[in-house]
Amino acid sequence: MPVLVMKFGGTSVATLDRIRRAAKRVGVEVAKGYDVIVIVSAMSGKTNELVGWVGETSPMYDAREYDAVVSSGENVTAGLMALTLQEMNVPARSWQGWQVPVKTTDAHANARIEEIPPENITAKFAEGMKVAVVAGFQGVSPEGRITTLGRGGSDTTAVAFAAAFGAERCDIYTDVDGVYTTDPRVESKARKLDKISFEEMLELASLGAKVLQTRSVELAMRYKVKLRVLSSFEEQSDDAGTLVCDEEEIMESNVVAGVAFSRDEAKMTLVSVADRPGIAASIFTALSEGGVNVDMIVQNIAEEGRTDMTWSCPVDQVKRADAAMQKAAQDGVINYDELIADEAVAKVSVVGIGMRSHTGVAAKMFKVLSDEGVNIKVITTSEIKISVLIDRKYMELAVQALHDAFGLDKVA
Amino acid sequence: MPVLVMKFGGTSVATLDRIRRAAKRVGVEVAKGYDVIVIVSAMSGKTNELVGWVGETSPMYDAREYDAVVSSGENVTAGLMALTLQEMNVPARSWQGWQVPVKTTDAHANARIEEIPPENITAKFAEGMKVAVVAGFQGVSPEGRITTLGRGGSDTTAVAFAAAFGAERCDIYTDVDGVYTTDPRVESKARKLDKISFEEMLELASLGAKVLQTRSVELAMRYKVKLRVLSSFEEQSDDAGTLVCDEEEIMESNVVAGVAFSRDEAKMTLVSVADRPGIAASIFTALSEGGVNVDMIVQNIAEEGRTDMTWSCPVDQVKRADAAMQKAAQDGVINYDELIADEAVAKVSVVGIGMRSHTGVAAKMFKVLSDEGVNIKVITTSEIKISVLIDRKYMELAVQALHDAFGLDKVA
Repeated sequence: MPVLVMKFGGTSVATLDRIRRAAKRVGVEVAKGYDVIVIVSAMSGKTNELVGWVGETSPMYDAREYDAVVSSGENVTAGLMALTLQEMNVPARSWQGWQVPVKTTDAHANARIEEIPPENITAKFAEGMKVAVVAGFQGVSPEGRITTLGRGGSDTTAVAFAAAFGAERCDIYTDVDGVYTTDPRVESKARKLDKISFEEMLELASLGAKVLQTRSVELAMRYKVKLRVLSSFEEQSDDAGTLVCDEEEIMESNVVAGVAFSRDEAKMTLVSVADRPGIAASIFTALSEGGVNVDMIVQNIAEEGRTDMTWSCPVDQVKRADAAMQKAAQDGVINYDELIADEAVAKVSVVGIGMRSHTGVAAKMFKVLSDEGVNIKVITTSEIKISVLIDRKYMELAVQALHDAFGLDKVA
Repeated sequence: MPVLVMKFGGTSVATLDRIRRAAKRVGVEVAKGYDVIVIVSAMSGKTNELVGWVGETSPMYDAREYDAVVSSGENVTAGLMALTLQEMNVPARSWQGWQVPVKTTDAHANARIEEIPPENITAKFAEGMKVAVVAGFQGVSPEGRITTLGRGGSDTTAVAFAAAFGAERCDIYTDVDGVYTTDPRVESKARKLDKISFEEMLELASLGAKVLQTRSVELAMRYKVKLRVLSSFEEQSDDAGTLVCDEEEIMESNVVAGVAFSRDEAKMTLVSVADRPGIAASIFTALSEGGVNVDMIVQNIAEEGRTDMTWSCPVDQVKRADAAMQKAAQDGVINYDELIADEAVAKVSVVGIGMRSHTGVAAKMFKVLSDEGVNIKVITTSEIKISVLIDRKYMELAVQALHDAFGLDKVA
């Protein structure tokens, strides 16, 4: 039997009624002849509640215990989904990460999937089971402790299963009906894309478009998993949603595919660091070991053996970054005057594979922002995207102006 | 190091503050030099919520999925308790049932613990860990699926760990300060017992006194585990609560130790069953396989090859019993006219090891009930208890009258 992976996010399983609705969608695919692997998130709000409890209990928590706590929400929905399917006479059973097993690294709270042996589930399919319901977001470390994959990790679980089982497609059911040129809550003229390339989706995801976890897109790209994002709240046709696919499958496209943004960024500057070869490595190794996800990096020109190092990171990691730098200083690894944090910045990016062949996108972006009186604090670019860090209060304005300037409300 | 087991029930871990209070009690015992195994229940209300969802999803649910869902609450509190202890600088980590592993039978929703290999936890104690926090109520089947031990199963988890680790004592922290002669909510003159024998506690527990799960008392009796029931909400002295211990350790006692009751009983009568040798076995095997916990049993005298069979069971198992009997009839195992359920009955019992040497307890009990105008529907007795099934509306009246008549408000 061909295998289909269907992933339901938190809002799609938020209540027993919604689980029932999702189960009906699964039933439709089973009726078409698929063996289905369903990946479920926790009911919406549950994981946040658990994360809140952990933070309140222990601000600098042990990530192993964090994982043990926050993974529990998915176990609930997996069991309930299996029961719902059974009620509909669809042979189903639930699997927790360690039962499959979903083998991950031991990087707790941010683990990577290393292997998903398909044998256990395949054997059940062979016995007549039609649906394996798997708790998303979780796995098991080499030591046998529970791990989680980071926020949005259920997307990655879904793609990893699609790759491991050679699934025909991986459908990500969510609360939006596809991938948009930007977030419609910020720009009402945002337009749904029928198709988007893996590369663009990857940039959009990593830039804060929350529709898919970055790593899930990376995996899909690497293993050529056909990935579809669609709404669990609408009747579905076979070409609903947005297909994330190879560049070649997209005929025409705008130079810029979308405008992404990330509201909760912080800009941190380590002032007057003693400069020497390898200093950047020392700083960013310490930050990485401290669990800080550094994004943009700027180094000022060194004067008299001292330099300033600037980076951006999620605003809720400022304390961790501070702790990591203090520890590195105590350990004698680095030496600096002070660490300044600007916690009121946001990142806005334009993304498009068309940039490869069209010049002037950066110049146009900077002019649009300048015309709106928005000051740019940090710039980074890649082959298919340009990102800027700006004051958070200008974020919506910047997104709207860029969306308009690049004609994203119109089909190419 | 001597090992102490401490179990905290749902109300004792209902909030982060209460978990902190419980953790402080654990810290006190660690400071005394114990290696502590903490068994936690789910936050109060959580398991009921999960059970409710399962029932709403699937009235005749697959018990394996039920277990996967309802076991999740304990995972949350285990992690939070470990984090709380770490915050207090007490080296601790959490364990889920399958991680220990707590090996059980595969009787899902009502599994029995078969073995708890102590190696994994002992190794961590040897490395300097002071507290192993274990999610109660759950285990893992030979097949590798999650099992649960039935309501109140965390008590059993606690005693089983105490036995497996040769613990000095097993302290059960709960929302009451010990074992009472009856439930103080029903009889305000109820009195706390300083000590009670395993046998009496076993009868009280199995008769509906909810302070300890029956199986936990059985296990404690078998393995001579010193079991103490005490409140997590009061400052504790070393002789707080009620000690459940061997009969020989109790000097003086009343003939009757307590009055127990169980409100939510049903009386079911299978009318006009074709009588033949083995018919009782057929009926009760079918009920057992249908997941019905039959308590009292009465068989009428057979006439013309037909008989009536009456039993009691928890009122929420009436549907299961009905389904089991219909299935048995379809399978040709039994043959009957109808199944009548009286869902408005309660069970009231008097318990005491003194009954062994004092006669007339039953006669006195029946007279007290008769004087109050309470009709007795079914009677069962054992060496140290007498139970009657009565109309539910008379339950409180009966408990109060018996408590008074046997002088339970006065110390012997």
